[in-house]
Amino acid sequence: MTNAEKALQLHEEWNGKLETKCKASVNNAEDLALAYTPGVAEPCKVIAEDPEAVYRYTIKSNTVAVISDGSAVLGLGNIGPLAAMPVMEGKCVLFKEFGGVNAFPICLDTQDTEEIIETVCRIAPAFGGINLEDISAPRCFEIEERLKKRLSIPVFHDDQHGTAIVVLAGIINALKVTGKKKEDCRVVVNGAGSAGIAISKLLLRYGFQHLTLCDKAGMLSKGMDGLNWMQEQMVEVTNLEHKRGTLADALVGADIFVGVSAPGIVTPEMVKSMNHDSILFAMANPVPEIMPDLAREAGARIVGTGRSDFPNQVNNVLIFPGIFKGALEGRAAGITEEMKLAAADRIAALVPDDQLDDTHILPPAFAPGVADAVAEAVKKFI
Amino acid sequence: MTNAEKALQLHEEWNGKLETKCKASVNNAEDLALAYTPGVAEPCKVIAEDPEAVYRYTIKSNTVAVISDGSAVLGLGNIGPLAAMPVMEGKCVLFKEFGGVNAFPICLDTQDTEEIIETVCRIAPAFGGINLEDISAPRCFEIEERLKKRLSIPVFHDDQHGTAIVVLAGIINALKVTGKKKEDCRVVVNGAGSAGIAISKLLLRYGFQHLTLCDKAGMLSKGMDGLNWMQEQMVEVTNLEHKRGTLADALVGADIFVGVSAPGIVTPEMVKSMNHDSILFAMANPVPEIMPDLAREAGARIVGTGRSDFPNQVNNVLIFPGIFKGALEGRAAGITEEMKLAAADRIAALVPDDQLDDTHILPPAFAPGVADAVAEAVKKFI
Repeated sequence: MTNAEKALQLHEEWNGKLETKCKASVNNAEDLALAYTPGVAEPCKVIAEDPEAVYRYTIKSNTVAVISDGSAVLGLGNIGPLAAMPVMEGKCVLFKEFGGVNAFPICLDTQDTEEIIETVCRIAPAFGGINLEDISAPRCFEIEERLKKRLSIPVFHDDQHGTAIVVLAGIINALKVTGKKKEDCRVVVNGAGSAGIAISKLLLRYGFQHLTLCDKAGMLSKGMDGLNWMQEQMVEVTNLEHKRGTLADALVGADIFVGVSAPGIVTPEMVKSMNHDSILFAMANPVPEIMPDLAREAGARIVGTGRSDFPNQVNNVLIFPGIFKGALEGRAAGITEEMKLAAADRIAALVPDDQLDDTHILPPAFAPGVADAVAEAVKKFI
Repeated sequence: MTNAEKALQLHEEWNGKLETKCKASVNNAEDLALAYTPGVAEPCKVIAEDPEAVYRYTIKSNTVAVISDGSAVLGLGNIGPLAAMPVMEGKCVLFKEFGGVNAFPICLDTQDTEEIIETVCRIAPAFGGINLEDISAPRCFEIEERLKKRLSIPVFHDDQHGTAIVVLAGIINALKVTGKKKEDCRVVVNGAGSAGIAISKLLLRYGFQHLTLCDKAGMLSKGMDGLNWMQEQMVEVTNLEHKRGTLADALVGADIFVGVSAPGIVTPEMVKSMNHDSILFAMANPVPEIMPDLAREAGARIVGTGRSDFPNQVNNVLIFPGIFKGALEGRAAGITEEMKLAAADRIAALVPDDQLDDTHILPPAFAPGVADAVAEAVKKFI
């Protein structure tokens, strides 16, 4: 049986990867009178007087909605809300298993920006946080930004920020290993969708100064046709020399390549054209932009991918469980840039200096204590 | 410590009466690759091809949304979505503990009929059924009716139908005990909101012919001022003699009183004016329309209340877990009138003839096997 067949069979056996579990027992009439009527009226009355008390008495204190419209699911594209369910349930499983955070999947039967925003605002009372997932760009940027303004609970698009934070963590350690300085590095990010743009923004925020975004049309540059509004914003702060050309052109002399794009589009020749001690995060899934062995043969020093069967796995399960755990425990009103940088720094610091080398720049997904460490780090910035 | 204090303390200890639990284990990279990427893509692809497969691979098969706008919570009134949370969580606990059905609370930050309908439709993909709860009349009627038309999953307003079904079950057995015939009985329902109207409709459907609805203004009758649109519909099929007058007037010669109204509004004199072997369901909570001992002293034969500390508790926990369990297992597209009548008949039949008497007309809330029995009964009508 292939792994694909096994996954399908297991999903049928599980028939849903999540269930609800009761913390309150109702074994007799006395229990019922406390957990339900008439006793339940007491916390209701307190919350009606003081809305903040909802965090003391209900699941809002530790529950996140994992919300998708099914428009950009894994590499499968726009498969709709029903077909997105297995992924959202899986995400909820990871929230619980890695972060101890309760999460529930909400798949929306609309892909209209206004309707998504309205719907999320209307269902927000039951939740302590909103994790947006697999919503296509550029809608995802507007949806997240407007929800952040309207809601007083954390809103976090994991495809953007979870990915950006773990990439930054990897790069922080890659700089340590190679001795490169962020001010001097030339960075190329390939893929100008949700992840690529969020990665670029966070790297700039961290202090990188020379960054070029590429997509299928090559280097994004000012005045170029076909850019969406977010890409228009990005060309104001990237590719400052206004270069035009292909990804291959962009990579000549570059120190760092970050790919959130398509399988096999980076050739050994392109890697050879990069600066010495080059750093590649080739995160197309399941087949990376260049296979690690090819990249290393061509001279790359550090290669990370999204896969668990190669070294340096870039996995945002290192990030989102701890980010939300910290935000919920600290009752954050949102996830700030400072919290994201703190999370990246903390993840990077989880690899002890004496273990840090070309093939060990990130902690493994199952390293113990990751979510707690991230949670503590982000809580300092609430 | 009073029970109220104890309930509040317990709610603080629970800090949410529900949590999520994972049915899929993710203890290592192999597990992760099956429950999440890349394995999770397999069920996604199957569902994208065949939407019905969502029931085979996801929680939709056995998960209900418990949805409220917080507009009519218990006897507390319009306390809003946050303050409604403890009740909705409690309801979810009952779904799981009594019916084995996963349920998740969704409290809506809107009380606008159109917005509620749109929001519920948009979040429906993740759920196998919708349980509406504590939404004020007459909006609840329109919201339920329109959702039933738009969605292909069961939609059930428990305050209406759960209550109506359990009252009918009690009345079926009360008729057996008293030897009265439904065709001859005169029924008075006091309280013309969601529960009172649903009870009236189901009793008419069951075959009662003489039924009068009352509220604070007395008997509802054709041409009366101040009726809402649903009450206008009800006076077409109730109070066929077009009587006007008070609740006291209505009760003269009546066989059955059903109260979903206010504490203490039925006097012993009113009970004395009823027909012999009168049947009273005085379900105002926590203080009934008349206390059972007073009613019995005044000549009532059978008295039921909503309370567990008196005989004949009328508790819709006997109904909704089994109704949804059956509907989900049978993949019903909705809860039909036939299913409701079947549930009432089955609940009534759960009290064996040799145990049936004035103070044992309904099975106790914690009687084993109730939800399974109801589920099997309703599945026959899918």
